[in-house]
Amino acid sequence: MWGMADSTALLTDQYELTMVQAALRSGAAHRRCTFEVFSRKLPPGRRYGVVAGTGRVLEGLEQFRFGQAELDFLESRGIVDDAALDFLAGYRFSGEITGYAEGEVYLPGSPVLQVTASFAEACLLETFVLSIMNHDSAVASAGSRMVMAAGGPPERGGRPCVEMGSRRTQERSATASARAAAVVGFAATSNLEAARTWGLPALGTAAHAFTLLYDTEEEAFAAQVEAFGPGTTLLVDTYDVEAAVRKAVEIAGPELGAVRLDSGDLVEQAFWVRKLLDSLGNKETRIIVSSDLDEHAIARLAAAPVDSYGVGTRLVTGSGAPTASMVYKLVQREDDSGTPVSVEKAAAGKASAGGRKQALRSVDDHGHAEAEVLAAGTPLAETGYLGRQLQVPLVIEGEVQPGFTGAEGVERAAQRHRDSTAELPAEAHRLSEGDPVIPTVLVPAAGAP
Amino acid sequence: MWGMADSTALLTDQYELTMVQAALRSGAAHRRCTFEVFSRKLPPGRRYGVVAGTGRVLEGLEQFRFGQAELDFLESRGIVDDAALDFLAGYRFSGEITGYAEGEVYLPGSPVLQVTASFAEACLLETFVLSIMNHDSAVASAGSRMVMAAGGPPERGGRPCVEMGSRRTQERSATASARAAAVVGFAATSNLEAARTWGLPALGTAAHAFTLLYDTEEEAFAAQVEAFGPGTTLLVDTYDVEAAVRKAVEIAGPELGAVRLDSGDLVEQAFWVRKLLDSLGNKETRIIVSSDLDEHAIARLAAAPVDSYGVGTRLVTGSGAPTASMVYKLVQREDDSGTPVSVEKAAAGKASAGGRKQALRSVDDHGHAEAEVLAAGTPLAETGYLGRQLQVPLVIEGEVQPGFTGAEGVERAAQRHRDSTAELPAEAHRLSEGDPVIPTVLVPAAGAP
Repeated sequence: MWGMADSTALLTDQYELTMVQAALRSGAAHRRCTFEVFSRKLPPGRRYGVVAGTGRVLEGLEQFRFGQAELDFLESRGIVDDAALDFLAGYRFSGEITGYAEGEVYLPGSPVLQVTASFAEACLLETFVLSIMNHDSAVASAGSRMVMAAGGPPERGGRPCVEMGSRRTQERSATASARAAAVVGFAATSNLEAARTWGLPALGTAAHAFTLLYDTEEEAFAAQVEAFGPGTTLLVDTYDVEAAVRKAVEIAGPELGAVRLDSGDLVEQAFWVRKLLDSLGNKETRIIVSSDLDEHAIARLAAAPVDSYGVGTRLVTGSGAPTASMVYKLVQREDDSGTPVSVEKAAAGKASAGGRKQALRSVDDHGHAEAEVLAAGTPLAETGYLGRQLQVPLVIEGEVQPGFTGAEGVERAAQRHRDSTAELPAEAHRLSEGDPVIPTVLVPAAGAP
Repeated sequence: MWGMADSTALLTDQYELTMVQAALRSGAAHRRCTFEVFSRKLPPGRRYGVVAGTGRVLEGLEQFRFGQAELDFLESRGIVDDAALDFLAGYRFSGEITGYAEGEVYLPGSPVLQVTASFAEACLLETFVLSIMNHDSAVASAGSRMVMAAGGPPERGGRPCVEMGSRRTQERSATASARAAAVVGFAATSNLEAARTWGLPALGTAAHAFTLLYDTEEEAFAAQVEAFGPGTTLLVDTYDVEAAVRKAVEIAGPELGAVRLDSGDLVEQAFWVRKLLDSLGNKETRIIVSSDLDEHAIARLAAAPVDSYGVGTRLVTGSGAPTASMVYKLVQREDDSGTPVSVEKAAAGKASAGGRKQALRSVDDHGHAEAEVLAAGTPLAETGYLGRQLQVPLVIEGEVQPGFTGAEGVERAAQRHRDSTAELPAEAHRLSEGDPVIPTVLVPAAGAP
């Protein structure tokens, strides 16, 4: 069953496998370990981050198997020895994964994922887990700000944002980006593979090439209306916008669904195009804008008569922060006697707090988040903070728990994101640069020095 | 044969399919068209770009087929009508693709790819082609500057750069990034799937977690040397660098292959670690540095006694320019009578030059590139410029030409990149911000107004 295309096991760095080989040989590979995924800091100026990719990690975990093709490759290159190849051939993750529910807000240090298993089992997943979570969380974190700038998710009255960034990012990142956008409240995507894989609403009608294909703009509009009815969206900025809007109304009539503006000063155009549409009797025809939109451009359009936003490049490239800078760090392991020991490195500028952490979002009397409380060693109940416990079991004894993957996983994540952002103080949604909206409080182990 | 995982046909935006439907219905779908892939401008400050992804486009083209699963999905969603479904079911690209050889330098406006076929056939490929080329060219363009900062490709005496960014980008972007890095002269990658797919050299030994797994750093080093011999690379910055270097030499002896520094002030550390290694008799032990390196950090390390660079985040995120901003524009189509007509849109700020362009890199008497000459309508021989013709046939009547895909494609692209960059004026490799290193000259059609 495990052909080349299906296995995810080589989506990894060589050092994960060489570490396993060396640990198998020394006898340390069986030591039970906990690795934590966290970000030391948010991208400059950001006030919160959004956990995304968790569902994709769980979906890919099932295919993280070394089939004959993968083993043959490793052997032919001499990357690991026979003992390691034997271990890899039988590899099935049998440990525990706990983490923030997908869609949850995170802050610096938040243990968004914890992987507990033997060193060999847990180490192998590092690259795969980080690739997914760093990408998807970067897109989700940028997307959340865009949705907030558009007035919040459509369920809360915001203007719909549509993800259309596929052409500006790697072809598989494009599908992952569409999914991450859905997690933070984007209403639809242009990407068909994402629509198929996770049941997302898909949208799209025509590009400038379609207009240019015909001898006149009228012919192009007529062809599109003929194919999709008057409720379609006509792209009106190939030549002269005013002339195009008049032609669009003439051809599609009062039921014209929408016009799309994809260049120029969108604020200024939106106002006069709205007036023009109204004057022609097309009060229900919507105005869709696209063209290098980001959270700031969307905010500038808030007062303009725009109905929805098509967002591409800036979303899929994380709006200046294309990776979430998450790391996968060993925080606890057994010693020779099987006793758990907290560990941490001391590297300059990259020090991390050891110990397996429990996380709680402390909430004030008004239901507003006020701190991210991380406790290593002390039970949350004894920290003196009250609020929501943030970690949920995702994998138990190797079994992926239900509800986190597929279309259901995306829907639940979107709900979690709406709830989690609603709980943040209002300044979380300011677009000006600022510090993390709530502080991260590290509660040391009871009795620690 | 075409299961869900194999087909690349849904890695596309919905509008490509709806345009095909409308054009089929209007009868314009058969019009022979040429689409050009180009970038209106380079990222701010960049002096040249690098074409990459061409080989992946050609590899993916063979799998761009709508199988039953894809057709069922489109039908179930009602995305296109029966006539369009019929067309898609039989879709095989049967046209021509011409382009810059992969690895070639490009400038604003360079027609890096030209797709000529019926509108329906060529339109369908837009998203797929742009996703690949925008991503891979962004990574290659950043990576080329890094390799130049490291003294040029190893074949020209530069210090080797190793790609290790997989953990900071989407899992499939990671493999594409490794490939793009190889195109611009990176010596190896950490990514195993890329190593398998394109025959790239892979590298990797251990992360901090491996050291933390053991009760002491000595035990970790001993375990690694036991598994991989003294020629391995030991990571020496988990605790105290000086102590670690001493332990590394003690355990591995004079044959210790390398030490890796992954934090702190790399310039300062490189000097004293070199002295320490020399004083301990390990003159042949190399120093590898990593930790948020980009072209600027690599340039700052030029005078430090460093042997190779591990580059991650900044490479795979395009060092500030994560997408190459390439577009796929209709530049020529037939009219009703079958006569080719140049077309271009007039949108504010996004205007493009119509007509199918031929490209030539004009070269002076010293063999230095001096202009990017693009001619629409005028034969290159009549432009008055001399130099290299840049476009090569990649696909002829639907057949992918040999030599551009797989491991051979990457090797040839790397050779082309070395030759192409060697031809640029020296200022091309300055890291300070500047304009494109040579101007783009658009030669109008003979007899054009």
